[in-house]
Amino acid sequence: MSIVYWSDAQRGQIWQAWLAQAAPDLDMYLWPETGDPAKVRYLVTWEIPDNLLTRFPHLEVIFSVGAGADQFTTDQIPHGINVVRMIEPGLMDDMAAYITFSVVSLHRGMPRYLRQQQQQRWLKHETIAASRCRVGLLGFGNLGQASARVLTTLGYPCSGWSRTQKHIEAVTSYYGDDQLADFLSSCDILVCLLPLTDLTRRLLDCDLFKQLPKGACLVHAGRGQQLNHQDLLDALDSGQISHAIIDVTDPEPLQADHPFWTHPSIWLTPHIASETHAETSVKVLLDNIRRHQQGLTMVGLVDMKRGY
Amino acid sequence: MSIVYWSDAQRGQIWQAWLAQAAPDLDMYLWPETGDPAKVRYLVTWEIPDNLLTRFPHLEVIFSVGAGADQFTTDQIPHGINVVRMIEPGLMDDMAAYITFSVVSLHRGMPRYLRQQQQQRWLKHETIAASRCRVGLLGFGNLGQASARVLTTLGYPCSGWSRTQKHIEAVTSYYGDDQLADFLSSCDILVCLLPLTDLTRRLLDCDLFKQLPKGACLVHAGRGQQLNHQDLLDALDSGQISHAIIDVTDPEPLQADHPFWTHPSIWLTPHIASETHAETSVKVLLDNIRRHQQGLTMVGLVDMKRGY
Repeated sequence: MSIVYWSDAQRGQIWQAWLAQAAPDLDMYLWPETGDPAKVRYLVTWEIPDNLLTRFPHLEVIFSVGAGADQFTTDQIPHGINVVRMIEPGLMDDMAAYITFSVVSLHRGMPRYLRQQQQQRWLKHETIAASRCRVGLLGFGNLGQASARVLTTLGYPCSGWSRTQKHIEAVTSYYGDDQLADFLSSCDILVCLLPLTDLTRRLLDCDLFKQLPKGACLVHAGRGQQLNHQDLLDALDSGQISHAIIDVTDPEPLQADHPFWTHPSIWLTPHIASETHAETSVKVLLDNIRRHQQGLTMVGLVDMKRGY
Repeated sequence: MSIVYWSDAQRGQIWQAWLAQAAPDLDMYLWPETGDPAKVRYLVTWEIPDNLLTRFPHLEVIFSVGAGADQFTTDQIPHGINVVRMIEPGLMDDMAAYITFSVVSLHRGMPRYLRQQQQQRWLKHETIAASRCRVGLLGFGNLGQASARVLTTLGYPCSGWSRTQKHIEAVTSYYGDDQLADFLSSCDILVCLLPLTDLTRRLLDCDLFKQLPKGACLVHAGRGQQLNHQDLLDALDSGQISHAIIDVTDPEPLQADHPFWTHPSIWLTPHIASETHAETSVKVLLDNIRRHQQGLTMVGLVDMKRGY
């Protein structure tokens, strides 16, 4: 019974060494090594190789190395093969830190202060208390909940919106299409952490932006295809949105001379909000393989119809 | 029995209205109004007026409107008059948010990413896990402890250094001169939140910087006079310190053409890390007045010899 790993080589070597100690019964191969293809039950990858079942006729599970599985299309996944996305503490810590950085930056006016530094101006501006700065997490799974835990510690009132109802302490939960408008109208800072699905593609557009309070801020750490770039530029220029912090774009890297690079009300980072950590994620992988062997449900099992 | 308030007028009006409801037995006057000077027991101020006891012969307590009392000199305070500094949740939330913003910015390389945006470069850099980025809080009172609570939630290992021993869950505590070197050698990010006293003036100098690990970062949100500006510039230029986020300078505002304004490895904010919030601080003030009336120790009572 073996695992084939097809992703970042450095992380692969760390995983291989750790698994050799922790699970000597499992052989892990780093692509293009595969061992005996007939023994491969698990594939860890970001992309699906072609001729999947010809290569690995007894494959049972595909593990995405990332938090999402939107890079896989339904027709790439043979019937009966499970897909699991990565839910691991390193990713969650990373994202919670990035979202906290972004929310505090926007609430406290850090883009303005750093611009003032360039202008050699020492000038304070009034800010509202954190307790009056409402943060809304659009997409309220593991990453959103980890972010809300830190933000509530800092005194920010948080709400979350998801497809299905969630009950999280100290957070106002909204769910489903019916409650989206109410959710949006309560967001001084909107944080997008949605998975990419047919329902979320281009969701961040002018129709959504106009439902936010005038002058709200946007943090986008979901997926690039969820944002209509031109609509964001229009919303910034009209003052409907006052500032945006953007970590994901479509395409990535963002093309040269795209207006986001130079817009004074956009902070842009190159998809670094969170990534899978080798040391913490390999434990999650092994735990899921043991669950699979015991017939238990794996953590992060993807419903490919739903898309996450 | 009355209170005279001599500070920011806007906050004064909020306090006056709130106290009128919550404590009708206490009259609060906004300077230059004082009511009958003989009835004034409490002065709330940032500065000490001259001829203090001639103006208010029955004064008993001076409340600083800020977190520090370093703006008062011992010889300004008549014998027997208590001095109390402001310890209130608004200040603590503000500071915890600013320190978290700063630590995440430095750990995750945000200054570099924002510079890359200006250069239209999309390039990721490796970062260590938060669990390997050690944060040291130099000055570990209320503000430092509030900051450590958030940072540990984000997975940063925190230590604190103070004059006297503290026991705080999940934080390594160092105290006294003997343990300062050990503390400093364990700080990948050093956060200064010290009160200004004769012992801390110019403490942040080349002798201290060279005890940090090579390439450490500095966050300075204590008082401007604690930092030797030239020594910081030298430490940045030698690479001993890799980046600094500075909220306090000496003097303030920072003078035109000072090298901090344009240094590529300094982020400068105009003393905005935290400020006293009208709504939360007036409750602390009233609570302290009630404590004083009942003969209890007030929260934030200053030992003027020690300086905080």
